[in-house]
Amino acid sequence: MLLSQLFTKTSKDAVADAKSVNAELLTRAGYISKTMAGVYSFLPLGLKVLRKVEQVVREEMDAIGGQEIVMSALAPREYWEKTGRWDKKVFEPLFHVPAAGENEYALNPTHEEVVVPLVQRFIHSYRDLPFGCYQIQTKFRNELRAKSGILRGREFLMKDLYSFHPDAACLDRYYETVQGAYDKIFERLGLADRTYLTYASGGSFSPYSHEYQVLLPQGEDTIFVSVEAEKQGKRIAVNHEIYDAKETTCPVTGGKEFREERASEAANIFKLGTKFSDPFKLVYTDEKGKVHPILMGCYGIGISRLMGIIAEAFADKDGLVWPPDIAPARVLIVPLAKDTNEEPFTVAQDLYRSLQKKGVACLLDDRIDASVGSRLNDADLLGIPTRVVVSLKSLKAGGVEVKDRSSGNVEVCSTTKVLG
Amino acid sequence: MLLSQLFTKTSKDAVADAKSVNAELLTRAGYISKTMAGVYSFLPLGLKVLRKVEQVVREEMDAIGGQEIVMSALAPREYWEKTGRWDKKVFEPLFHVPAAGENEYALNPTHEEVVVPLVQRFIHSYRDLPFGCYQIQTKFRNELRAKSGILRGREFLMKDLYSFHPDAACLDRYYETVQGAYDKIFERLGLADRTYLTYASGGSFSPYSHEYQVLLPQGEDTIFVSVEAEKQGKRIAVNHEIYDAKETTCPVTGGKEFREERASEAANIFKLGTKFSDPFKLVYTDEKGKVHPILMGCYGIGISRLMGIIAEAFADKDGLVWPPDIAPARVLIVPLAKDTNEEPFTVAQDLYRSLQKKGVACLLDDRIDASVGSRLNDADLLGIPTRVVVSLKSLKAGGVEVKDRSSGNVEVCSTTKVLG
Repeated sequence: MLLSQLFTKTSKDAVADAKSVNAELLTRAGYISKTMAGVYSFLPLGLKVLRKVEQVVREEMDAIGGQEIVMSALAPREYWEKTGRWDKKVFEPLFHVPAAGENEYALNPTHEEVVVPLVQRFIHSYRDLPFGCYQIQTKFRNELRAKSGILRGREFLMKDLYSFHPDAACLDRYYETVQGAYDKIFERLGLADRTYLTYASGGSFSPYSHEYQVLLPQGEDTIFVSVEAEKQGKRIAVNHEIYDAKETTCPVTGGKEFREERASEAANIFKLGTKFSDPFKLVYTDEKGKVHPILMGCYGIGISRLMGIIAEAFADKDGLVWPPDIAPARVLIVPLAKDTNEEPFTVAQDLYRSLQKKGVACLLDDRIDASVGSRLNDADLLGIPTRVVVSLKSLKAGGVEVKDRSSGNVEVCSTTKVLG
Repeated sequence: MLLSQLFTKTSKDAVADAKSVNAELLTRAGYISKTMAGVYSFLPLGLKVLRKVEQVVREEMDAIGGQEIVMSALAPREYWEKTGRWDKKVFEPLFHVPAAGENEYALNPTHEEVVVPLVQRFIHSYRDLPFGCYQIQTKFRNELRAKSGILRGREFLMKDLYSFHPDAACLDRYYETVQGAYDKIFERLGLADRTYLTYASGGSFSPYSHEYQVLLPQGEDTIFVSVEAEKQGKRIAVNHEIYDAKETTCPVTGGKEFREERASEAANIFKLGTKFSDPFKLVYTDEKGKVHPILMGCYGIGISRLMGIIAEAFADKDGLVWPPDIAPARVLIVPLAKDTNEEPFTVAQDLYRSLQKKGVACLLDDRIDASVGSRLNDADLLGIPTRVVVSLKSLKAGGVEVKDRSSGNVEVCSTTKVLG
């Protein structure tokens, strides 16, 4: 992609009303555009990042046999009444949408009310269980305030997996399998060493639910990290909501020492038991013809939120720093030339084409009318992992100047080595 | 994918309240599930079809330089008030969503009101023009009635491209480029020979807009096909809304003979001129520093609707018939065996694995407890292009029985040939 063709532009100015690090950086870099508080559009480079996060999550869900579907954003009021969650006092963030013919629809913030009647059409026997289906889909929450950029939105992209089981032992096994998949996701996104499996309140069925909290200086959550678990090489924490300085012990190690941290919740997993099966009478028949309720688990990951978390987690004073697997491109080539006929430009163009031919996603900054300083600042702000500057000076020194965005290391090497 | 693992099931029964061919077939085959009238979820096999249609459209948009983005589904009421379309009398199908803090949001059925303020942040000079950006995104319409399955929904997936130009000549050229891309899309989807470029009313800026209407016996639109244009090998029609039996002539050939047909609108393209630029004051500065309004075009394609159109266009009495490039899998293998140790099953399994290794998407019907009749009926209903039956009989005859779903042709050939 040529930067001269990209309709978005970077901006040096602080974003007028951005109160969050991710909103500020992603907006200035032209990755996202605010429609209103908590509601963002994803621009060409931002969409590439979002799709890459999505693909990592999809691959790990497929690897554990998750069947991908896409459920509707709208649902009839009756489904939500069935579980009691249409009531604003029970579930405040649900949008109630007035519709033609005196109808009212829910604009789904989560999909238990849709997935249960959906699977009910197909699942009747013990032979149909267990299974899990997931979607990557836009969700809506009627938040009074939304000022954390894409960390907490009124509209956001989620992966939600729902699993269905004949008994608690089966649910427990599946729950552990999903934990393994989630560990892989955070590993692949480069977040593993700052992500804590955090115990939170469990609702009606289970003593705990689990959150995956990523340490962030501006995170909206407070967690208490188990110091003893850390000494054993485990990252375990307790959410402040269930933390009591006098009584709480680490659920894994039994340790009593905790460290308070700011964090952002990237994922959560729940054992739902029969909470949603019961109101819809979602049941199965066992080998002997006896009817039982189906047990459920649900497993969410915020896809757009993860993009915001990654942005905040790795950014430095100069801008964004994308992990290579998530970056919108691996390489940004910046020729320092005043004319497209000059050698630095033609060398850069050749390198760009050769990298593309090799399947390496790259950007060519062909905006030769812009100042060198602003182009190098843009390169830092955009956060592409490898910056390649081609100048008369670098060519004299035997090649191109390669800078690693993350470490800041610079070396001059031949174009052959860059292509290597 | 193993059919025994798929949580969806086919159904022989007519769908209780399906009033449309696509809803009936896609529901019975387990491709979609109705949440409520006009609102569907896409199930594992259905999602694969939807994504393939989407990818064809994306590739052709990228090929003409379209920059992919994803805009928000929600928008502030003020944006829609600016163009006058918040008013129900002006634009009835807009959902008005009450929100916390006495706000109201629009749930976008189209995105002019979002894309114009979005590009306004970046586009200021003649040097920034022309360009086009598009999205593939879920849209919402507050329809009183919705009974055409995924042909006309309250919630649906659209591709919408918006283009921006300094003058009418530039818009005209771009408009023709998009027409070329659309022709390629309908060609790739196998619909070209039944798709008519249909002249419809043009609104304030242009004498006509253009629709791509696909002939369908149950289509919800009536068009008048120019007989003279057909004789010249062109597929041109006039929408009934602007057709007058006494006065209308074919806009391309001048011919006066027309044939009435039922059709479904798969796409539409408009020259918007300054209709949306004016209220937002979207302008650019020319070479001499003079300020002008930016001209716009918009170009829609219904992605989920196209899936429904393709389903209806090719189906026969036995079920769905997917064009190979859109099918959820190329090959469905059906071993006729009572046990997984029997030769037909092991041969089928080997073939399945070999095809997968070659990158050919295939399904294995490993439901050996089901009757042969129901499995062969399912194969027809699912509409996978190639059905491979492996039986003791076929093995004795030298291989496997290969049936082409579209032509119905059957031949026995070796597994080596299937792997071709």
